[in-house]
Amino acid sequence: MFTDEYFMRVALQEAEAAIEKEEVPVGCIIVANGRIIARAHNLTETLNDVTAHAEMQAITSAANYLGGKYLLNCTLYVTLEPCVMCSGALSWSQVSKVVIGARDPQRGFINKNLSLHPKTEVVTGVLEQECSTIVKDFFKRRR
Amino acid sequence: MFTDEYFMRVALQEAEAAIEKEEVPVGCIIVANGRIIARAHNLTETLNDVTAHAEMQAITSAANYLGGKYLLNCTLYVTLEPCVMCSGALSWSQVSKVVIGARDPQRGFINKNLSLHPKTEVVTGVLEQECSTIVKDFFKRRR
Repeated sequence: MFTDEYFMRVALQEAEAAIEKEEVPVGCIIVANGRIIARAHNLTETLNDVTAHAEMQAITSAANYLGGKYLLNCTLYVTLEPCVMCSGALSWSQVSKVVIGARDPQRGFINKNLSLHPKTEVVTGVLEQECSTIVKDFFKRRR
Repeated sequence: MFTDEYFMRVALQEAEAAIEKEEVPVGCIIVANGRIIARAHNLTETLNDVTAHAEMQAITSAANYLGGKYLLNCTLYVTLEPCVMCSGALSWSQVSKVVIGARDPQRGFINKNLSLHPKTEVVTGVLEQECSTIVKDFFKRRR
């Protein structure tokens, strides 16, 4: 039951919550031992803060919950491929696994030849279609 | 009087404040129209948060002060070359100018072939010796 698809659906719910605030719909959750310990969505407009990406908030929140800054034995689910900033934060966090919904060829870290921590497993393409559609539809409506 | 060296000395004072908290001594300030609008030092240990680099805090703080997320007409001074995470945040911020003290060949963004926003001017080597020494001395004492 607790598959990558299951948790990505929760991240997608976070992305949907972002839409209601007119934020670019990206959602993120962090799971430890099968439990969701952090959930967040993009809040850059609401907070007037370029650093308020879903992943950044989730990393801070999970570390706070765990009482330590390293996210060992944690899996982060994010609906859109992390940007350079978020990939750097993920590297520092030493998170065990990162599961990505849709790729972001222009802004994402993969095409910039950046890598996460050597111990971090990266999985892409989980609910890719839905994660991609939610962002594309958002920008279509704004045009 | 208000030269890059002048403001880098203020950033160095921030780095010194970090030492007292046993934090890696990196300091950062943001200047707009000759006024310091944000100052911060690394707080990753104190806050148990890998995202609490000096630059990240200064960016958030300056945006809060300005009431907008873009740091147009702002100059950021940082004692150590920004890492991948911080360079990503600086890109998003569209900050006008970044002045760097010491280079960080291993962790810094320059050797990763990353660049900031096309409009951002980057200056390196301001008070390089002092900015480098403060970090080296910190790690020497910890060994």
